[in-house]
Amino acid sequence: MNYNWPRLREFVIDFGRMLGKNPTESVLFAEGGALLAALVAVDDWLPPEYAEPHPERYQQYLLHCDSQERFSVVSFVWGPNQATPIHDHRVWGLIGMLRGAETGERWSKGADGRLQADGLPQRLEPGDIDHVSPRTGDIHRVANAFADRVSISIHIYGANIGRVKRSIYHENGDVRPFISGYANRHCPNIWGIQQII
Amino acid sequence: MNYNWPRLREFVIDFGRMLGKNPTESVLFAEGGALLAALVAVDDWLPPEYAEPHPERYQQYLLHCDSQERFSVVSFVWGPNQATPIHDHRVWGLIGMLRGAETGERWSKGADGRLQADGLPQRLEPGDIDHVSPRTGDIHRVANAFADRVSISIHIYGANIGRVKRSIYHENGDVRPFISGYANRHCPNIWGIQQII
Ligand SMILES: [Fe+3]
Ligand SMILES: [Fe+3]
Ligand SMILES: [Mg+2]
Repeated sequence: MNYNWPRLREFVIDFGRMLGKNPTESVLFAEGGALLAALVAVDDWLPPEYAEPHPERYQQYLLHCDSQERFSVVSFVWGPNQATPIHDHRVWGLIGMLRGAETGERWSKGADGRLQADGLPQRLEPGDIDHVSPRTGDIHRVANAFADRVSISIHIYGANIGRVKRSIYHENGDVRPFISGYANRHCPNIWGIQQII
Repeated sequence: MNYNWPRLREFVIDFGRMLGKNPTESVLFAEGGALLAALVAVDDWLPPEYAEPHPERYQQYLLHCDSQERFSVVSFVWGPNQATPIHDHRVWGLIGMLRGAETGERWSKGADGRLQADGLPQRLEPGDIDHVSPRTGDIHRVANAFADRVSISIHIYGANIGRVKRSIYHENGDVRPFISGYANRHCPNIWGIQQII
């Protein structure tokens, strides 16, 4: 299967250069969101090894991690009806919808410390961009919007997200430690010379 | 097969941090050479997919490329008797011997523009470090020191070496353009949480 992986290499180079200017978070979301929107605007570059659903649970495949763990690029693959638990991130995150569709519900802690839904669920369609941030809203639950097909979104985080110590929340108030890891032993080599392999 | 890939992750993080201080080339070779010496001091971390010889020619596997292409980490795998052509690099390079042994011959251009051997061939044993530099000697030929076993060295370059436009030299004076690429479609995921996989 052919895929245009140089698109991902250019994204990584451009995103890292943007981060090197030490942008404020709002500039990061604006400029990084524009770069991510361009990346997910065309669904021709994700190698098929990183688009495979797991039969029982959503999977996250690391596509690139920065040498200094300034950012990581991850493909989230949902099989039919699969969803995340309610979780946080502890770092900024950008989400770009590549294939299918997903729904995101935001949650926040009420005065009593309990979680409460924060607004209505939002649906992302291919090309749409969303973000999370410890400053403006870091807790959500994401689900495949489809019961009969795979959906994939591309996430950029301000850390090596697979090793970040974070939390999973239960509606009854329980909070549990969570370190996601990655589903993949190998990442795509996006640095070579073949245009199409 | 188990391997201790977190050693490579720590090397990448430490090497990138060192480069971030914008060292002079001599400091880079001293500090980077020490980091590389520590990496190749123990042969327990290279995933077997990146240690496979090709039956007919040496191979180079990309292990990591920096987001801004400040540096790349490559495993060179020589089958029995395999050797490189005489070549240059155009950027600084560090070489650390991991497994087996290799011989390196340096070449330089004489007054007549012809290549001439520059000193005696040098042999690298596991743990040994060498370097190349456009400033102090950038042309060499490297060969497996063994006729009956695989040798592997780990190379760090000051660019995404697989895409650098450089040259191959022939002893008769011919010079040909050379872009090496990489042998691998996938790189090791060194960023996850499992200590041994
Ligand atoms: Fe999330
Ligand atoms: Fe070389
Ligand atoms: Mg919409």
